[in-house]
Amino acid sequence: MTAQDGRVIFTRGGQAESVHAVHLAVVDAAGQRLAHCGDADLVTFPRSSSKPVQALPLALGLPELPGDELAIACASHAGTPEHLAVVERLLARSGSTAEDLRCGTHPPFDPTAAAELIRRNEAPTPLHHNCSGKHAGMLLACVQNGWPREGYTEHAHPLQVRIRELHAELGGVALDDVRRGTDGCSVPALALPLHAAARLFARLAAPAGPLAPALESVFQAMTAHPFLIAGPGRLDTTLMPLVPSLAAKMGAEAFYGMALRNSPRGPLGIAFKVQDGGERARPHVALAVLEALGVPVTAQMRALAPATLHNWAGRDVGTVEVELPLVWG
Amino acid sequence: MTAQDGRVIFTRGGQAESVHAVHLAVVDAAGQRLAHCGDADLVTFPRSSSKPVQALPLALGLPELPGDELAIACASHAGTPEHLAVVERLLARSGSTAEDLRCGTHPPFDPTAAAELIRRNEAPTPLHHNCSGKHAGMLLACVQNGWPREGYTEHAHPLQVRIRELHAELGGVALDDVRRGTDGCSVPALALPLHAAARLFARLAAPAGPLAPALESVFQAMTAHPFLIAGPGRLDTTLMPLVPSLAAKMGAEAFYGMALRNSPRGPLGIAFKVQDGGERARPHVALAVLEALGVPVTAQMRALAPATLHNWAGRDVGTVEVELPLVWG
Repeated sequence: MTAQDGRVIFTRGGQAESVHAVHLAVVDAAGQRLAHCGDADLVTFPRSSSKPVQALPLALGLPELPGDELAIACASHAGTPEHLAVVERLLARSGSTAEDLRCGTHPPFDPTAAAELIRRNEAPTPLHHNCSGKHAGMLLACVQNGWPREGYTEHAHPLQVRIRELHAELGGVALDDVRRGTDGCSVPALALPLHAAARLFARLAAPAGPLAPALESVFQAMTAHPFLIAGPGRLDTTLMPLVPSLAAKMGAEAFYGMALRNSPRGPLGIAFKVQDGGERARPHVALAVLEALGVPVTAQMRALAPATLHNWAGRDVGTVEVELPLVWG
Repeated sequence: MTAQDGRVIFTRGGQAESVHAVHLAVVDAAGQRLAHCGDADLVTFPRSSSKPVQALPLALGLPELPGDELAIACASHAGTPEHLAVVERLLARSGSTAEDLRCGTHPPFDPTAAAELIRRNEAPTPLHHNCSGKHAGMLLACVQNGWPREGYTEHAHPLQVRIRELHAELGGVALDDVRRGTDGCSVPALALPLHAAARLFARLAAPAGPLAPALESVFQAMTAHPFLIAGPGRLDTTLMPLVPSLAAKMGAEAFYGMALRNSPRGPLGIAFKVQDGGERARPHVALAVLEALGVPVTAQMRALAPATLHNWAGRDVGTVEVELPLVWG
């Protein structure tokens, strides 16, 4: 089902300058479609928004895992010393080291942490990779579930097979409808219809069935440790503390998933994709959909998506406008 | 006139992941529309692609200005020591210093230059701003044309009035059709229809009339000093030396202008806008339109817009595909 696209419009001097198209789906606690704009059947990659589901085998295999370690397993972290400390603790739990990580390496996402490495003339390690917590969690999930750590990122590894099954089960689609690519960190990147991705987050918002305890653990870990999920100034970290009972997880290419427990319509799952992958549109859409769903948007929340644009000299030069023509039902 | 949009599609695992829409216009030496895709009448901001026209009052006022200084006046430079040296020489020519620049400050665009400032614990100055050469040129244009340097960035300043008139004249539109916003560096950002922006570049490709010597000087300065126009690894710098008689200038929000003298159809002006402002699409569209216009695309050129995407571990994960459904005439 396709409706008019959502749009995020960047204007300059009262003139539209650039436009991002948005596809969005909202699913309720029963897994039913509640609202959407654009193409709710769009098959796309949640990317890191999959991390809460990718962490379920870990939560299932080790229910007593400390919440901060479960959080870092769900994180796209900013590579600060605080993040790395939790990653190392989680790694040690499976007897692994940084050398066992298959994610690759990149500088910390946090500019301050990145600058510090430059000042010290230190190269980043795989620990700094934003997915290192996920990978550390996957290594532990292998150990807890009796799977080999060797080849843990391969499509055919039992952990990755289980993760794909969980996407199909929680997303409410056939296994064949969960397609596979390769993610930036080398694990499978799964693609599924947008409404199914929203359903993953609805299951986090309203856990039910045999997976309920693990889903609940993941939801609690994310909401109790917003700093670990992302980092300084990053949307998941700044938004979650401002909205009661919200677990939010961004994905690369401007994907976003939100498990919202406290809404006038009860627990909801929200997923959206900015068509062109433009990350700057994400906070604007996040606020707009929360507002459309009856969540009060405070001034602190508005500050996460300023409607006024400034230039290098601090002058007002334009605005950001959001159109979210939601179709209900 | 609107035709089907151009598209740049980023795929992962054979599945489309993100899509950028593209509007593009090609104009010939006589100023006539040759081809387009998407909306050739789209009113948008060329942003820094305006710099060759913004430099015309300087070229008109001081025909003997050295080519490297005229180039830095047209540049969105990467802030390396080599760029700064030319900016300082140009500034001195009008008796100005960095304190007279109104562009604001940001770290160098070049990562190596930026890292060097961090290592030295030095803050960037207005000289590092990518538009500092343009501003230095504007200050000199004021002096040469007998205008005050005071307020040189204001809409009502005679220099900015003249620049807007030049956009209308060379773009082939009424003055009222050249709308005004404020740019990142605080000078006016002018908006005009895409076909008119293409016409600006056609005038650079085929100078005629009283402005011909100044247009020729700008074209020669850009093509003779590709490093100064941008910097290490940046598209204008890497593309210009690979295509005979091409002057190319990128603009923020994924605008691009090309003055192509050597094509099977003679001198041409090309302008395109990636609708969402996604800069990564720009090189792909640039190569695709050159190829569509009969310019041979070499392996070195293809390297500027790799069709294969790699992840942090160096693995192939996806592709970039370009659809440019040009309508001719």
